[in-house]
Parts: sequence; C-alpha cells; structure tokens
Amino acid sequence: MEYRYSERMAKMNGAATREILKLLTRPEIISFAGGFPATQCLPQKEVQEIAHELLSEGKATAVLQYGTTEGFVPFREELIKYVKTAGIENVSLDETLVISGGQQGIDLMSKIFLDKGDVVLVENPTYLTALQIFDSYQAKIVGVDADENGLKLDDLEEKIKKHHPKFIYVVSTFSNPTGKTYSIENRKQIAEITAKYGVMVLEDDPYSKLRFEGEWVPSIKSFDKAGNVVYLTSFSKVLSPGLRTGVAVGNKEVIRKLTIGKQGVDVTTSNLSQLIVAEYLKRGYLFPNIEKSLPIYRERKNAMIAAIQKYMPEEFSFINAQGGLFIWGGFDAPIDTTKLAPEAIKYDVAYIQGQVFYPNADVTNMIRLNFSNATVEKIDLGMSHLGEMFKKEIAKAKKA
Amino acid sequence: MEYRYSERMAKMNGAATREILKLLTRPEIISFAGGFPATQCLPQKEVQEIAHELLSEGKATAVLQYGTTEGFVPFREELIKYVKTAGIENVSLDETLVISGGQQGIDLMSKIFLDKGDVVLVENPTYLTALQIFDSYQAKIVGVDADENGLKLDDLEEKIKKHHPKFIYVVSTFSNPTGKTYSIENRKQIAEITAKYGVMVLEDDPYSKLRFEGEWVPSIKSFDKAGNVVYLTSFSKVLSPGLRTGVAVGNKEVIRKLTIGKQGVDVTTSNLSQLIVAEYLKRGYLFPNIEKSLPIYRERKNAMIAAIQKYMPEEFSFINAQGGLFIWGGFDAPIDTTKLAPEAIKYDVAYIQGQVFYPNADVTNMIRLNFSNATVEKIDLGMSHLGEMFKKEIAKAKKA
Repeated sequence: MEYRYSERMAKMNGAATREILKLLTRPEIISFAGGFPATQCLPQKEVQEIAHELLSEGKATAVLQYGTTEGFVPFREELIKYVKTAGIENVSLDETLVISGGQQGIDLMSKIFLDKGDVVLVENPTYLTALQIFDSYQAKIVGVDADENGLKLDDLEEKIKKHHPKFIYVVSTFSNPTGKTYSIENRKQIAEITAKYGVMVLEDDPYSKLRFEGEWVPSIKSFDKAGNVVYLTSFSKVLSPGLRTGVAVGNKEVIRKLTIGKQGVDVTTSNLSQLIVAEYLKRGYLFPNIEKSLPIYRERKNAMIAAIQKYMPEEFSFINAQGGLFIWGGFDAPIDTTKLAPEAIKYDVAYIQGQVFYPNADVTNMIRLNFSNATVEKIDLGMSHLGEMFKKEIAKAKKA
Repeated sequence: MEYRYSERMAKMNGAATREILKLLTRPEIISFAGGFPATQCLPQKEVQEIAHELLSEGKATAVLQYGTTEGFVPFREELIKYVKTAGIENVSLDETLVISGGQQGIDLMSKIFLDKGDVVLVENPTYLTALQIFDSYQAKIVGVDADENGLKLDDLEEKIKKHHPKFIYVVSTFSNPTGKTYSIENRKQIAEITAKYGVMVLEDDPYSKLRFEGEWVPSIKSFDKAGNVVYLTSFSKVLSPGLRTGVAVGNKEVIRKLTIGKQGVDVTTSNLSQLIVAEYLKRGYLFPNIEKSLPIYRERKNAMIAAIQKYMPEEFSFINAQGGLFIWGGFDAPIDTTKLAPEAIKYDVAYIQGQVFYPNADVTNMIRLNFSNATVEKIDLGMSHLGEMFKKEIAKAKKA
C-alpha cells in the first residue's frame, strides 16, 4: 500500500520538543527540554476533592453526558473574571470559547483565517508548535524582528504593508523561547498598528501568571478597540497540563467562527476537566497555589543562571527572564546546537536547539533551557555536563 | 473590522444537530434530535470511584502532568484487547492512537490525506459531522449507493475508478443515520476492492456494542490485509460522551502521521479521561454495564417503532435497526422535513431533517429519530405530536 498523504504532511514532522521528550526514557537524563510546570506545584489534593464532588450522585450527569461546544456557562463566567487579571474587562459570554489548551486556540485560529499561501507574522523566534501549526495550513510564515521592548514596530508595519498578513502571532509575556516581555507602550502600538491595517492579532498568554520578578503588564487584548485581537490563555502552566483546558477571548463574530471550527474537531473539551477548573477558580484556589509556586520557580531560575555563569563557556550569553519557564541564550562561536542536541543526550542532558523556533530555520547557535521541572541540584549537575560539552566543542572549533 | 476568513469557512455553518440542541432550552420539548446515550446508563459510581483513586497522592502526577500524544501505554494495551471484540487481532502498540472521540479521528484522517479538491466517498446518506469535516478540508464528497446489505459494490468500484478518492468513510454497523449494518460478505468485498485500488477506508464504529437484536459481525478492519483500513471507535456511546475518548487503529505508518497531526491540535487527550477509561476497561466494568443498558435501549427502540405505527401517517416508512441509537424513515409524499423542523419545535418535538446527511443535500423527505435518551412515555407523547403534525401537512399537501 502506497499512502497518498496530503501536501501539508510534507512539512509536518514530529514536534522537536515532543520527539526529544520521547528520548528521555533513561532516568539519569536531566531534561531542560520540555516546558513542564514543576510537578510539586500540581494541586493533587484540591483536584481530587473537586473531582469527587463533581462525580457524586445527582451531579455526575453534567460531567458524563454531552455538553455544548462553547463550554459550560459557569466555567465561562469564571473565565470572564479570570481574564480581568490580564486587564481584559467587559467580556460577555459570547466572547468566550473553552478550548482544549492554548494550542487548540492556535489551530482553530489558523483554521478560520488561513488559506494556503496566506501570510502569518510571528516574532522571530517564536513557539515552535505554532510554526508547525501554521505550516500545517500551508501558510507562509514571516518573522518580525524584536528587541528588549517587544516587536520592532517599523519592521512590523513594513511587513504588514508588504505581506498583507491574515494575523500576527505573539507570546507577549515571557515569550517562548526568549522569555522576553513586551513593554506596555509596545503593546499599545501593536494593537493600534494592526487595527489600522485590519490585521488580526493572536495573543498567546500561557505564562504571564508565572511572574517572579518585575512589574505586571496588561495584555495586548486590553488595548483592543477594533475587535481584532484574540487572546488565548491556558491552565497548563498554572494548574495542570494534563487536564487540557484553556480559553479564547475575542470579538463574538470571531468566537462564533472558532466555535464552528471546534465542533468538527473534538465536539467539546472534556466536561470533567472544564468543571474541575471552573470549581478550582470558583473556590479561589488558583492564586494561592500560584503564590506558593512562584518561590520554587524563582529559585530554579536563579539556580539556572548561577549554573550558567559557573559552567558555561564565556562565549555564551543569555536573557534573564522575569518569569515563565525558559532561559534563552546563544554562542558567539561556531557552535551548531542542532547537531549537538543528540551529543548532549550522551552527557545525560536534554535541551532544545534554537533553530526550531525560527520560521526560516537559519539560526544554529541558540538554545532554550527550561528550568521549571528540575531540582536545584539537578540544574547544577545538568548544567555542569552541558558546560563541559560546549567548552570541549568550542575548543575543537578553535583548533580547526 | 472586516474579518478576512479562510475560504473553507464559506461552507462551514454550525452543525445542524448542535444548533438544534441549543434550541432545546424549553424543558417540555421532547428531543429525538441528538445522539445522546441514555443518561441513566452513565456509570456515575464507577467513574467516581476510579477518579478518586487516580487522583490520590503519589498517583496524581500521571493525571496532572503532560503525557505523550500517542496516549498512555496501559490505556493502549487495554484498547488492543478491546478492539478484539470487533474482530481486530494482533494489533501492536504503534498501531494505536488515543483520540478525543471518534470525531477527532475523522478530522485527523482528513488532515493527513486530503488536499483541496480531493475526493472522499461516503455512504449516501452518512454522518453529517463527517460531511462537515470533509467540507472543512475543501474535499469533494461523493455518495455511494447502498442497500440492505451495505454499499453497492458495483457503484463503489465505478466511483473509485472515476474519482480516485483518497479514502472512503463508512459507519458500517448501525449506520448514522440509517441504522443499517453491512453484511459480512459486503465488508470483505469493501476491504478487497479498496485494497485493489489503493484507496483507504475510514471505518467509524461508535455503535456496534449497542446491539440489542441480531448477530455480531466483525469490522471491515478485521478483513484488512493491505493496511488500508483505519478503524475508529469511541467511548461516547458505551461509557460517557463527556470524557471525550476514543482510539484509532491502523497501519503504524498511518498512525504515526495521525499522531503528528494530533500534536498540533490538542497535544494529548485529557489524561484524566484516558486513565479513567483505561481503569474502567481493566476492571471489567464495560461489558456488564453495556449488558445492563441494552434492555433499556431495546425497550426504547420498540417504543419508538410502536409509536410510529400508532401515530405516523401511512405514507411514512422506516428501517428497523438492530442496534445503535437511530430510526431512519421517510415519506412517500411531498413533505419537506427541513422546512418542518422548526414547526415541530412548536409541537414540542425535535428531530433531525434527513437532508443534512446527504453530500448533495437534495433529499428532503427523510427524518432521523433518536430513541436512546427519552423515556418510553416521552417517546409515545413526542411521536403522537409529530404524527399529528405530519398528518396535517400531508392533508395540506393533498389539498394543494
């Protein structure tokens, strides 16, 4: 049997991160590769308690029977309150859609807007799975330059004029992979410029609650006057990735289209997951648990920075994130981090090569290091191995 | 803001069934519209017990942390045993993918095989959401004629030769909407003819366990020698639709592609749902619960048939299904069931017009009646209203 796959499959290989995760079967490997929240921050007790109540006699039908694609109304009411913490006010029910994680939001947004050959703008670099999703819709992905304040606005405007993109995708707070946060002024300008040219913004915000330094900033969505921003957030990093829940907030016409898109994809998000998260929010468990988690993340981030300074070659520089899960850095030396990723596994360490985060894949000297799911001791040990490897490689390169 | 949606959205309206379900807010409305399992058959106690254990200290990490896209290995091991009940033997782990319901299987299959303009063959009529999914990939859908034995094989072969379809989609047991079951010989022939021409088969089997009359038949997949059949089954009708779990079984190369497709859609199926169903299967709860449910379904089906005979006009004829959730029937009279669907709501009854199940939408005299989620009393009452309405309409038509 010769399988006649669709054209879109030609560009779709396994997600680099998920493929590397599968390699991590040896328990001695220290992984800086994934984007897992700290396991000890997952609220086992509270979820157990809530699930038990939801599944009790007389209540369980809501969990076990079919629900609506839009999601449970009491959950969406909690979500409307929740997104106020991102500065998003006056959201009505029909401006919300429950999704099975932020990633589904990216997929549905692509589904409703992208035809083959349409352009999507992204920060360069950006979340690799978003790139893969845009590829699966055979879109043309164009990177926009960024600096420490966020997107370079002249580059953004120039590329909007040149490419007439359907939308721009950004992780505006603790960006994946760079850990950067756009300034408030930058956010306002992004909202204005895109509105002026009739370009949608897909603002993906999985990380903003994991801020352990610096000042809170409102979302780009909070500056949306034209109805051109769709805001995504998920509970994967602040509650549990295994439950697969998130929300899309946008203009009600767009939300309606996203809902129609979701009908054909998975009918509804798991009722049990929806109702667990709804109740978790309602009982006020979320923010106290985040407060308890932040010192752990902060400690691990600091351990990662200290280990970088202790073990990594002087040719390595990095961005010191104020939150989120990642440290992004690169070598001022002829080091190919893509080629070395399998070599690092021999040193019992996993990282993600920077190349996969670029739409044009021509940058080979960068790496993304996750600090959230390893202990301080493991971070030190893993970075000492990684430092040893990179120092050897740089010495080799200098000899050659 | 003028939204520039993708071309595919032009054909995507809300799913007719789900839109009708939203109308059913008045509690006095009796719904024969959806495809809900009987609420009383949902195993509240067992699911509560299992969820509590899965979320206990020391175990909950598997539920709450990220999992692999393929799904949990212990669940897939249970699924390998489970599909033996459809005659599918010798399945290996890498021939299985956990999905978030059968519908996700249809979407992923479309994603990996369909380019714009590609042809999909379907039984005429077939599951309306499948039609909508194929539309969303801008495929050309061609109906294959069917009779009481299954697909008409000469028509199938002719259409394969003419259209070179990427795949054929069938609900081979208790078809949606017709309730028909393909004969064993028909299944063998479908497997052979499609293999001969290198055409994939997508066999969707949500209903076969809900057999309350007649003899068991093996799946088309069980006759697959070429690796061209992908078999989907879900736990929505036999355990709980709210949990959103199912499985795809196929050649490992195809399963690998489906897995890559799923990575970009929802990362994984809810861990909690997966592990609940895994444990439910492992503890042997499924088949006893189905055994307990079947008399309820049988009784309701018989009540529906009796009420049809009692109340419906003599111009109405139907197929007496041996299982599943639906009775399919039509009028030998100028009755437009699409136009009358909102009228029926005034009579406090909902049904689904037959038109939505046809790829070319030119049949307007058929209706699908669901009998699984209303009591015997409600079925009698609802059908008396429906019969009254249709009799009036036929009288009107005769006068005109």
